[in-house]
Amino acid sequence: MHKSLPNRAIEWRRSTLILLDQRVLPERVEFLPIKSVAATHRAIQAMAVRGAPAIGISAAFGVVLSALSHAGKNNHQARAAIEADIEYLASARPTAVNLSWALQRMQTCLHENNTQDRLAALERTALAIHEQDIAANKTMGRLGAKYIQAQSNVMTHCNAGALATGGYGTALGVIRSAFSQGKVQTVFAGETRPWWQGSRLTAWELQQEQIPVQLLCDAAAASALREHNIEWVIVGADRVAANGDVANKIGTYGLAVLARHLGKKFMVVAPGSSIDLSSPNGAAIKIEQRGAHEITQVAGKMLTARGVNAWNPVFDVTPADLIDVLVTELGVVENPDTDRIAQLFAR
Amino acid sequence: MHKSLPNRAIEWRRSTLILLDQRVLPERVEFLPIKSVAATHRAIQAMAVRGAPAIGISAAFGVVLSALSHAGKNNHQARAAIEADIEYLASARPTAVNLSWALQRMQTCLHENNTQDRLAALERTALAIHEQDIAANKTMGRLGAKYIQAQSNVMTHCNAGALATGGYGTALGVIRSAFSQGKVQTVFAGETRPWWQGSRLTAWELQQEQIPVQLLCDAAAASALREHNIEWVIVGADRVAANGDVANKIGTYGLAVLARHLGKKFMVVAPGSSIDLSSPNGAAIKIEQRGAHEITQVAGKMLTARGVNAWNPVFDVTPADLIDVLVTELGVVENPDTDRIAQLFAR
Repeated sequence: MHKSLPNRAIEWRRSTLILLDQRVLPERVEFLPIKSVAATHRAIQAMAVRGAPAIGISAAFGVVLSALSHAGKNNHQARAAIEADIEYLASARPTAVNLSWALQRMQTCLHENNTQDRLAALERTALAIHEQDIAANKTMGRLGAKYIQAQSNVMTHCNAGALATGGYGTALGVIRSAFSQGKVQTVFAGETRPWWQGSRLTAWELQQEQIPVQLLCDAAAASALREHNIEWVIVGADRVAANGDVANKIGTYGLAVLARHLGKKFMVVAPGSSIDLSSPNGAAIKIEQRGAHEITQVAGKMLTARGVNAWNPVFDVTPADLIDVLVTELGVVENPDTDRIAQLFAR
Repeated sequence: MHKSLPNRAIEWRRSTLILLDQRVLPERVEFLPIKSVAATHRAIQAMAVRGAPAIGISAAFGVVLSALSHAGKNNHQARAAIEADIEYLASARPTAVNLSWALQRMQTCLHENNTQDRLAALERTALAIHEQDIAANKTMGRLGAKYIQAQSNVMTHCNAGALATGGYGTALGVIRSAFSQGKVQTVFAGETRPWWQGSRLTAWELQQEQIPVQLLCDAAAASALREHNIEWVIVGADRVAANGDVANKIGTYGLAVLARHLGKKFMVVAPGSSIDLSSPNGAAIKIEQRGAHEITQVAGKMLTARGVNAWNPVFDVTPADLIDVLVTELGVVENPDTDRIAQLFAR
């Protein structure tokens, strides 16, 4: 379909969104050509693309695909159809706010441009969202790395790397940046049940850059923090509430409690697009629940007896008071709270 | 090989140790006939039988198999050969002290009985170890259940049930007992990576007794404790040090930290045979490390890229000060420390 393999997990090539299929990594490196809104929605919902910034970027290109498919309609009809598609894309997953943030930006662009300019303007906006995300990651990498001491081990959870973003990564961006400065020795990465983002994605990303990584089962985090000279736990975010509460991959909250108990530091790295000022606190964030089969089955095989129930929330909320540093491209917030986060946007 | 299926996970039938193979549960219910010391060692090391009390009981029967196999030798030769077998059996797994406790008891019996009585005496002792373990579990079940409030949810980790013991269970014994009194509503059980004791064994045991169970990935414990009206986390132990530090399945320590942070109570249930007065504290306990493949592969399939390292300690140490109640058949110790545990044995 395309002549050369894309360099990025998300790439826009002449009317096609090309996504690296994260469901089959690292066993297979396969790219999905996405040519419709329905296929974009499916890719997000089925987690062919995952990671809060990455799903926002993908959805933005989904709006360009929408505009392409409605190009034959009159102005009023096309605009209504694109708006309906935007609403449909927003429903793909509930927790990461970057999805609605990116769609809101596309919607604004839609309203500001008439029929003739619409397609080009939407495409420019989607490309800008993508490029700005990468630039934000690099800024965050630089800002966050300042906090890392020389000869450190760090811990991360899930995948907040190049795969989860436009490129480079949020939490892994900080780790990449600190590693390039010679500060980081080993990254301890939780395997991240039930979807194995740590095993499949983070370990693979780090291995490719020759950053030493030790995988561990999620329940080994407490021992690792106690025994491995780890000073910082560094994670991404799917949504940051106005008061600094953070929704992120299930297990994040427990790591923050452990870090506090053991006198370790806890860093959240997330672009401004992950901050949702309309959610006053974590209780306002909808936490996605996925099927019990993700717990009771593995690699297509039943682990449990038939009929066993499982509780499978895929995110949790970490209260702001357990977060030492929130790193954004707008600046760093130490001990985040409502006022300090508001100041970030007032700068 | 045998006419009826055994009723228990461990059964001694006329010169054969019959073990329920815990590696293939719950998919298949298969029994292994064990007829030699080497096969006993293999079954313990490969985790066909697991759980601290259960491996102690199995090893005791392994000594009877040793005595049977050396029955043709003269007194001195037989005794030396059995002692060598005892040493070999003790090396099968390092962390659970019940293994060396049971073997010590068999060794004492060996020394106290001459050639003629030896085999019968060793068999009687192994059977007594088994029966006394079940009786201890029932006592602990009764003592621990007193702490559980009506209409509670509880959380457990790994499998400290009938499968892990002579029968009935330690942590699950308390839960069974409290459930039979109408106190427990739902058991939240961590899946317990990497060996899935929660998914495969605990959920199966509870389901068979129609005790409601919700499985969760280990990293969801913090959210579950916060959101599900869980008052007690109840676990078993592989070894309790003289000061009350507890070595148990990896993840136990993190749960104890979470329980303390969230104002929940933490109960360890373990027979006297799990208490090792010769280990002054947790730092003296050898923690078994198993292969990285248990983390990097699942169901025979590579999860990670080739060459990814993993850290796989299968136990951790929970400091005594995070334990609210230690339940043994000798009595209950609240806020365990060296003095209170010593008093348990002085009673």
